[in-house]
Amino acid sequence: MPNLSKNLKKDLKKVESFMRKNLSKEALVKELYDYIFDNSGKKVRASISLISSYGMNENQQNRLKLAAIIELLHTATLVHDDIIDNSDLRRGRTTVNVAWSNSHGVLIGDFIYSKAFMLMNEIGNLKVIDELSAATNKIAEGELMQLANKNNLDTSLHQLKKISYYKTGRLFEASAKSAAILSGKSISFIENISKASKLIGIVFQVRDDLLDYGISKGNSGKPEMQDILDGKITYPFYYALKNSSKKDSSKILKKLRNNDFSLKDISDFVSSSNAFNECNSLIQSYSDEISKCINKISNKEIRDEMLNLSESLKNRYE
Amino acid sequence: MPNLSKNLKKDLKKVESFMRKNLSKEALVKELYDYIFDNSGKKVRASISLISSYGMNENQQNRLKLAAIIELLHTATLVHDDIIDNSDLRRGRTTVNVAWSNSHGVLIGDFIYSKAFMLMNEIGNLKVIDELSAATNKIAEGELMQLANKNNLDTSLHQLKKISYYKTGRLFEASAKSAAILSGKSISFIENISKASKLIGIVFQVRDDLLDYGISKGNSGKPEMQDILDGKITYPFYYALKNSSKKDSSKILKKLRNNDFSLKDISDFVSSSNAFNECNSLIQSYSDEISKCINKISNKEIRDEMLNLSESLKNRYE
Repeated sequence: MPNLSKNLKKDLKKVESFMRKNLSKEALVKELYDYIFDNSGKKVRASISLISSYGMNENQQNRLKLAAIIELLHTATLVHDDIIDNSDLRRGRTTVNVAWSNSHGVLIGDFIYSKAFMLMNEIGNLKVIDELSAATNKIAEGELMQLANKNNLDTSLHQLKKISYYKTGRLFEASAKSAAILSGKSISFIENISKASKLIGIVFQVRDDLLDYGISKGNSGKPEMQDILDGKITYPFYYALKNSSKKDSSKILKKLRNNDFSLKDISDFVSSSNAFNECNSLIQSYSDEISKCINKISNKEIRDEMLNLSESLKNRYE
Repeated sequence: MPNLSKNLKKDLKKVESFMRKNLSKEALVKELYDYIFDNSGKKVRASISLISSYGMNENQQNRLKLAAIIELLHTATLVHDDIIDNSDLRRGRTTVNVAWSNSHGVLIGDFIYSKAFMLMNEIGNLKVIDELSAATNKIAEGELMQLANKNNLDTSLHQLKKISYYKTGRLFEASAKSAAILSGKSISFIENISKASKLIGIVFQVRDDLLDYGISKGNSGKPEMQDILDGKITYPFYYALKNSSKKDSSKILKKLRNNDFSLKDISDFVSSSNAFNECNSLIQSYSDEISKCINKISNKEIRDEMLNLSESLKNRYE
């Protein structure tokens, strides 16, 4: 078994312990912090970071710390997103905004964000800080674009792509880029792994949108059909509209405009169209581009691990 | 007129233009951003920063940028605070959470935070970034402490002091410290101006708490008696409890516990006690300490400007 693959799990455990280390002695901060990190997910972004910095020998601590920082930033966005979407479940557990309140969610999110920036300073690489703060800024911008786009039944494919890049792809990209920079990789390596990771992030979002339309058969740990209830027009609904007859699409648009629809109406409309196939074609075309970028990477271990990751995320059920 | 004092107003105008520069092309981001910065307040923290870096000749742009960054961080906390306090007015205008929604407030706050960190990287001084990210972290911690302390009628003076240091004093302190570091000042200067600014921030908070109890006669641009309505036990109420007869304090505590009180009950209870005098004694004792620190500063212009600032803030009506 190659070293990278063998060490990745071990390294992710160490990343987790970095993440869990919370300096505050305040009871409420500890309580919220422990609650949030008790169930800390797949760590896809930390994996991308660790793969991208593979081979960095001088300072392993910084390599692991960077991966932890990226997961902290991601976690802060999730806590804030749950407020925005008014979600009550995350990874099968009650969200902070429901178990405590929106206020708690806002503040512990801010606490985690600023903690991530404090840890970045410990690493002390300005290019890394720059990349991660720019990504954090774009995530907020992407979420605001999505808010502005709420209930916009004319949403274009261009808008959808921009939103999924900003709110998801951008941090995937930064995970690769900051780690590749930190580990002193070549410019072409940085470019290839960053672009592949950006596209993996966009595919991750398309898959997320598909899962929301029930293709996982209830295994995602989140309630289904939330997006349309939140007024979010995502890839499946966009393609369903585009591929339906004028008559069918007018009918569903009328129902939506009058706010007089059942989830079954929407679900039937989308699943009877060619939308899922179109989403999968989109995923496939991104995947081809991803493979192209990854295949330009000379290190075989990194190449294999990135291809594995890309493949497993695109077929995930949760 | 001394140079520092003469230039401060001009410099604050330049700081304002830095703050207003928003790189996003997204309509909603621009709209929110312009709304928030259209009415950007007194810029006390930017003033402290500019005073503390006075005499820095090499890079004026960075000096002004740092002051802008500090105001951006402060603004982000205000936008988030308005969500937490469910406030509908800020500086006499409708808050983002009311004019748009809580979601908009969360996201534009995150956007402004990360923008501040991006600008810090442009300055590129790791000690400055470290000080400001640590301060941001403490603000969130202080706000969480305050949440945990909601309706806690046993709040101690120690807790009140800690909360007002974290949520207010810490950023005042960081405004001085980061600017003094950036401008290459001596260690003793850094210590004295940081400590003075920290205490000025705490006094600022005590005064804020007094203003909430109506001593400004409605000139503060905010509704009065909000703190007790939000379950916040602040200095005036703490001192009123401490200085009242057992009978009077039991009566008011009973009303509060049963949530059966009028604002007049609270207002009468506090204003008929010695609470306002006690708050003013506390302010006076901090002011003495502040003057001591400031008087250790050798530069007369900086000394005078800091004493002015301290004096005007402690007597402010808004």
